[in-house]
Amino acid sequence: MDLFLQTSDYVGVSFWLVSVAMVASTVFFFYEGMQVKAAWRTSLAVTGLVTLIAAIHYYYMRNYWLYTGESPIIYRYIDWLLTVPLQMIEFYLILIAAKIAVSSKVFWRLLIGTLIMLFGGFAGEAGWINPALGFVIGMAGWIIIIFEIFRGDSSLAASNNESIKSAFNALRIIVLVGWAIYPLGYIFGFLTPMIGLGTVDINALNIIYNLADFVNKILFGLIIWHVAIKDSA
Amino acid sequence: MDLFLQTSDYVGVSFWLVSVAMVASTVFFFYEGMQVKAAWRTSLAVTGLVTLIAAIHYYYMRNYWLYTGESPIIYRYIDWLLTVPLQMIEFYLILIAAKIAVSSKVFWRLLIGTLIMLFGGFAGEAGWINPALGFVIGMAGWIIIIFEIFRGDSSLAASNNESIKSAFNALRIIVLVGWAIYPLGYIFGFLTPMIGLGTVDINALNIIYNLADFVNKILFGLIIWHVAIKDSA
Amino acid sequence: MDLFLQTSDYVGVSFWLVSVAMVASTVFFFYEGMQVKAAWRTSLAVTGLVTLIAAIHYYYMRNYWLYTGESPIIYRYIDWLLTVPLQMIEFYLILIAAKIAVSSKVFWRLLIGTLIMLFGGFAGEAGWINPALGFVIGMAGWIIIIFEIFRGDSSLAASNNESIKSAFNALRIIVLVGWAIYPLGYIFGFLTPMIGLGTVDINALNIIYNLADFVNKILFGLIIWHVAIKDSA
Amino acid sequence: MDLFLQTSDYVGVSFWLVSVAMVASTVFFFYEGMQVKAAWRTSLAVTGLVTLIAAIHYYYMRNYWLYTGESPIIYRYIDWLLTVPLQMIEFYLILIAAKIAVSSKVFWRLLIGTLIMLFGGFAGEAGWINPALGFVIGMAGWIIIIFEIFRGDSSLAASNNESIKSAFNALRIIVLVGWAIYPLGYIFGFLTPMIGLGTVDINALNIIYNLADFVNKILFGLIIWHVAIKDSA
Amino acid sequence: MDLFLQTSDYVGVSFWLVSVAMVASTVFFFYEGMQVKAAWRTSLAVTGLVTLIAAIHYYYMRNYWLYTGESPIIYRYIDWLLTVPLQMIEFYLILIAAKIAVSSKVFWRLLIGTLIMLFGGFAGEAGWINPALGFVIGMAGWIIIIFEIFRGDSSLAASNNESIKSAFNALRIIVLVGWAIYPLGYIFGFLTPMIGLGTVDINALNIIYNLADFVNKILFGLIIWHVAIKDSA
Repeated sequence: MDLFLQTSDYVGVSFWLVSVAMVASTVFFFYEGMQVKAAWRTSLAVTGLVTLIAAIHYYYMRNYWLYTGESPIIYRYIDWLLTVPLQMIEFYLILIAAKIAVSSKVFWRLLIGTLIMLFGGFAGEAGWINPALGFVIGMAGWIIIIFEIFRGDSSLAASNNESIKSAFNALRIIVLVGWAIYPLGYIFGFLTPMIGLGTVDINALNIIYNLADFVNKILFGLIIWHVAIKDSA
Repeated sequence: MDLFLQTSDYVGVSFWLVSVAMVASTVFFFYEGMQVKAAWRTSLAVTGLVTLIAAIHYYYMRNYWLYTGESPIIYRYIDWLLTVPLQMIEFYLILIAAKIAVSSKVFWRLLIGTLIMLFGGFAGEAGWINPALGFVIGMAGWIIIIFEIFRGDSSLAASNNESIKSAFNALRIIVLVGWAIYPLGYIFGFLTPMIGLGTVDINALNIIYNLADFVNKILFGLIIWHVAIKDSA
Repeated sequence: MDLFLQTSDYVGVSFWLVSVAMVASTVFFFYEGMQVKAAWRTSLAVTGLVTLIAAIHYYYMRNYWLYTGESPIIYRYIDWLLTVPLQMIEFYLILIAAKIAVSSKVFWRLLIGTLIMLFGGFAGEAGWINPALGFVIGMAGWIIIIFEIFRGDSSLAASNNESIKSAFNALRIIVLVGWAIYPLGYIFGFLTPMIGLGTVDINALNIIYNLADFVNKILFGLIIWHVAIKDSA
Repeated sequence: MDLFLQTSDYVGVSFWLVSVAMVASTVFFFYEGMQVKAAWRTSLAVTGLVTLIAAIHYYYMRNYWLYTGESPIIYRYIDWLLTVPLQMIEFYLILIAAKIAVSSKVFWRLLIGTLIMLFGGFAGEAGWINPALGFVIGMAGWIIIIFEIFRGDSSLAASNNESIKSAFNALRIIVLVGWAIYPLGYIFGFLTPMIGLGTVDINALNIIYNLADFVNKILFGLIIWHVAIKDSA
Repeated sequence: MDLFLQTSDYVGVSFWLVSVAMVASTVFFFYEGMQVKAAWRTSLAVTGLVTLIAAIHYYYMRNYWLYTGESPIIYRYIDWLLTVPLQMIEFYLILIAAKIAVSSKVFWRLLIGTLIMLFGGFAGEAGWINPALGFVIGMAGWIIIIFEIFRGDSSLAASNNESIKSAFNALRIIVLVGWAIYPLGYIFGFLTPMIGLGTVDINALNIIYNLADFVNKILFGLIIWHVAIKDSA
């Protein structure tokens, strides 16, 4: 039996909410993926895998929080190591599903940018390299991603599928704005405390991370689902 | 191993009954959703998610009751935070499935009404704001919802699909009558005891809440299932 | 880890056998339901729900027996409260699937008969009312059901689908003969010991109940499956 | 958490291997059953049920072995009581799927033979009847089965579907040779030790039983799967 | 509740990563297998079984590591005993799916090579035979496999399906290069320490094995998935 949630434990509540929402989203994406056009099916499968992997980790994270009252940072990193590359692959899959001409180099550049971003963050936090250097490397990877998905504009502009354009745009906003929460977490949750510039509130940090995962994984997936349904009608 | 139910624990029996009924309903809605017309499939998927989320929380609620003998109020709120917005989305999805012209503003008004209703209740109970103020805010949200779903009359009247009309009407009755149980629970279970006007019977309150969830989630879903099957035949 | 079964515990073996058989039946009915004609699909879904709900309760019942060595009477009643109404609904669904004209009043009479039957038994056993009165009420409910399903003869006779006629007949026999085990269990397991007319053998009672559930749920379902497959060929 | 396997525990390894193989086979048979011709689908469903039931019991058997180091004989009998009749039904289903004229009496004779076989073994081992008499009864049941499935020759010979003929033949060999392991286990594992003619090696007996289940359930199923795929192409 | 991962336990992290990746891959392969051409469906099912079996063993391996801090060698061997033959069968299934003429002897030679390879390794490590002899036997089995899958060149060359050719080639590289990790693990993790030539780092060995399983099972599967999707378009 898992420990029970305490009514006053708002951080625990936020872990629980996101945990159950991930389970429900996973069922939803796989279920809906069975009725969209073949071209969109793999997109929805990958979206479902992102929330499935998150559901597994949030189950452990919420228990970790209930048992220890500490940040389950190691589970977050493992989750990101698996879900962030999958989300980058999504950009590529969407372009293919929308029948927009796209070089396979885009796939590799997105994957490499992702791996650089994750390696920088992980190596910095793990103490393999200087934390500030890790931050710089991680940001460089993110910039590669941002550059790549915004540059896609030209080929996308040639398309006359308005719903795909607006969906793609929404996903870009999420990667630009929603993902900014992670380097901010790195700075305020890890970097500044380390150099003695004050410490971050562990409660606030976890609630923000949980909210960010809700937006970056579930809302991200719903945008893809919406355009897939529209394009399949 | 979970604790065993005691024969004399009628509240525990009601938790158990609803818990198993939610599991069975979830399987039923997803299974049946695979044979209805494409337009209704997402409606049944969302209905299935509502009972899936409730099944998860009722599993914890029944154990919470068995272990502590106290009201699992925090699990109820988390459940409502996830399932009530999904049910509001259902009204919008049904109108679309029935091919009734409906502005996307209806979707947003229903969602906003729901969030106001839930925020009011939660903030009041959590002590963030004055409990009476929380009640007023929550009621305001509910009134927005009621107004919105009853106002739909005009466009619905234009439709000549009798089974959809009567289904929509039944769902409205549930939101008007069935949902009234929640503010009543707030008043008698939380507000009046707080201002010294006597205390509520925790056993009665939980049995009533469980019955309300049975009606508001499972019966609500069955009405949607019934019209979906009829319209797909 | 659950407790292990003892080789000499024949009652435990019968719980285990029925428990696993319910799991296998559930998978079977849902799996097969996907290949029958649309008209029969819901019938098989409801049959699968009956064994699913029984599988859940038998899992707890077999553990209850292994841990306590006592009759898991509360789990049996919860199971019946959910599965017996579903089985009554089956009669109605079969008539519809077989395209036999049937008034929706049949549905309500069957449901009401079931609720009277279950209420009588439960209220009597729980001591809300006089046990003998409970028995009389319960029997009255059962008689309503028997009357209703045997009266269907006239409309059924008009049908010329022989396989449906014989299936419907087999189901009636189960409700008439197989269900008789429950009032007998009430008399010998509860009523007569209460008025000092000797006590029932708890081992024999549970083995008989388990066998009855095997016949009344699994065999009941197989008959429906058989006619559904035949009618879909 | 289950106990961990010890590297030197070869019997435990054989339980584990068969346990996981049963899980994988179950997934495989149900998954593949969705793409074969309707006539073969039920055959594959029943094959999947056999390995599903075995997977459940092997899970408990491997834990029983790890915790107690003793033979999980009661779980084996429960497993056989459910899976052996299902396998007999398979012979009948295959003949139907292959559109070979077969009397429904074949179904009943196979079922009765199976029940006699299982009753003899169980009653003998449980001490209800003389162990040697139980053995004779069990063998009689097996002979009825063997006779029935080999006699099918004549009607089968009329068929000109070579792949079904060779599959049916392979299944017969399994019932003749592969099933011989069970009476041998009865003789050496139970009968001879009982009359003082030496005792059997519990390790060897379990490894042989596990291997026999692998052949008699998984290989048995693969033969059916193979002919179903071929006949559906 | 499982033990929690420690942030500094990089080996545990690698077990966890591969464990979750196996779960996600399993869902993915079975889900995608439902939309490919019938000829490819069984290939994807077998690929899904490989990752399913690995997911089960990695779940136990990661817990074994967390609880004991030792190498879960027995679980690795059981996993290989089930997954390696399945992967060999994949080569045969791919040739059939690609409609390349292939003798059924290829199937048997691959299976025999696999069993020789696994027997050699297992018997050597279990001390049934001389460890060096076990190594030689194991290598002989591997060479049979390598020879068989590279010899397929001639018949494959006749095919003009470029995507199958390059997929088949990629799979061969994995068997040649990726599988080399296993004999290397045998040499450095078992053989050299045994003859006093120094001991291997248990941490490094497990991380390398985990990475190898990621490549040899998941990447192996993705290559098959990719060609199946392409060939089904």
